[in-house]
Amino acid sequence: MTKSNDTPEKPLILVSNDDGITAPGIGFLVEVMKEIGRVIVVAPNSPQSGMGHAITVGNSLRLDKVDMFDGVEAYECSGTPADCIKLAKHYVLKDEKPDLVVSGINHGANTSVSVLYSGTMSAAIEAAIEGLPAIGFSLCDFKHDADFSHIIPLVKKIASEALTSGIPQGVALNVNFPAISEQPIKGIRVCRQANAHWQENFDQREDPYGRKYFWLVGDFVNEDKGEDTDEWALSQNYASIVPCQFDLTAHHALSKLNEWNLN
Amino acid sequence: MTKSNDTPEKPLILVSNDDGITAPGIGFLVEVMKEIGRVIVVAPNSPQSGMGHAITVGNSLRLDKVDMFDGVEAYECSGTPADCIKLAKHYVLKDEKPDLVVSGINHGANTSVSVLYSGTMSAAIEAAIEGLPAIGFSLCDFKHDADFSHIIPLVKKIASEALTSGIPQGVALNVNFPAISEQPIKGIRVCRQANAHWQENFDQREDPYGRKYFWLVGDFVNEDKGEDTDEWALSQNYASIVPCQFDLTAHHALSKLNEWNLN
Repeated sequence: MTKSNDTPEKPLILVSNDDGITAPGIGFLVEVMKEIGRVIVVAPNSPQSGMGHAITVGNSLRLDKVDMFDGVEAYECSGTPADCIKLAKHYVLKDEKPDLVVSGINHGANTSVSVLYSGTMSAAIEAAIEGLPAIGFSLCDFKHDADFSHIIPLVKKIASEALTSGIPQGVALNVNFPAISEQPIKGIRVCRQANAHWQENFDQREDPYGRKYFWLVGDFVNEDKGEDTDEWALSQNYASIVPCQFDLTAHHALSKLNEWNLN
Repeated sequence: MTKSNDTPEKPLILVSNDDGITAPGIGFLVEVMKEIGRVIVVAPNSPQSGMGHAITVGNSLRLDKVDMFDGVEAYECSGTPADCIKLAKHYVLKDEKPDLVVSGINHGANTSVSVLYSGTMSAAIEAAIEGLPAIGFSLCDFKHDADFSHIIPLVKKIASEALTSGIPQGVALNVNFPAISEQPIKGIRVCRQANAHWQENFDQREDPYGRKYFWLVGDFVNEDKGEDTDEWALSQNYASIVPCQFDLTAHHALSKLNEWNLN
């Protein structure tokens, strides 16, 4: 990358998202990160919500330099959020390692089990897999014109603290903020992922040619009453931080499976 | 669903995959499952490799009944593996709960961190989120005409044991088998996910119109020397079973983050 937009002493911050490079949320994130570091953007050229940890293996990828953010080197990519991080690290940045990777700010919550479906968090988790400190930011308001103003100081505080204190290796932070309301956000809570799920439903419709099609719709159901969860924190008007790992091993289940009659 | 293909006393087994409903691997899986249960198939109508835990939120879905497997009710879906499981549970099966969900047999390994990118495992993990016992099966041979014959008895044994002993709630099994060789598979090992990663690279090319494009390529790098990992088991010609969970909380990192200066 060229080092045009700031002095090289500032930390290098890579920005991505899943709503696409034109979404307002990434614009807010870039503006905040410019205050604390040199910024480079590699983000999808189209919305990638719900893409989970998808990568592009059966198709080729495009990467185009764009002039979207004042004074910031930026690229749009035809792939997924995880593709963006891979391309940023191995092609755009090459030998220069970002001091922090941030993804978002997502228009909509990525709490509880939604972390698995989240493109925002897949960018952050991909960065963690690549050995980079990473944070995904989401606002619990999915509107395109959502108000991000109340969370700007908190985003800056969390990113600055990550740069100062460091994020544990192999961990990406999943940060969610309450939507704006008359009450200011009470503070920031470190949480575990709530054990909640989506109660799915399918809205059946008929196309103009008489063929059936479906829309996925669902209600979020939280039966986890713990007061140490992201859902609880947000319900109480706190921002939540969940440290996420990419080792999915259910260590507690190993002994049970070792009792199976397999050999 | 109609109960045409077998007696209702047999366990109900839902089959999906990520290579698409026409891939040979799912055909093998259906044949094995028919020996131990009533089978219903809901699988993608096109290859979905690398889709991770993607779901379809910005588009509608199609679901069409197909006659692909002898005596088996089967549907092809335009969505991702996770979509298939949601549609199967909430639309196709409705009030009937599968006794087991199996996904695969994938053409290619889904070991270590690849579990995050794997469509095969996303179907299994989605089932676990929905409270269903689930297994993803993968063969470490990505060829379309891969030889599955040597693993048929092992697939049957693992699925039967899952039906008999039960899979712990909230856990999906990630099963990988060595490719066929002159040596028979030594046995089955319960493992943890190896702490390995892909060392990515991008193959840059130019299209006929002079524009650059990229192919994601990479080498799998395993620096985890533990003999309790899936990678170790497969290297020793064992099949591997890793129990996977969908709670990504890095519990070990909570105390460190609570030391941050956030409030």
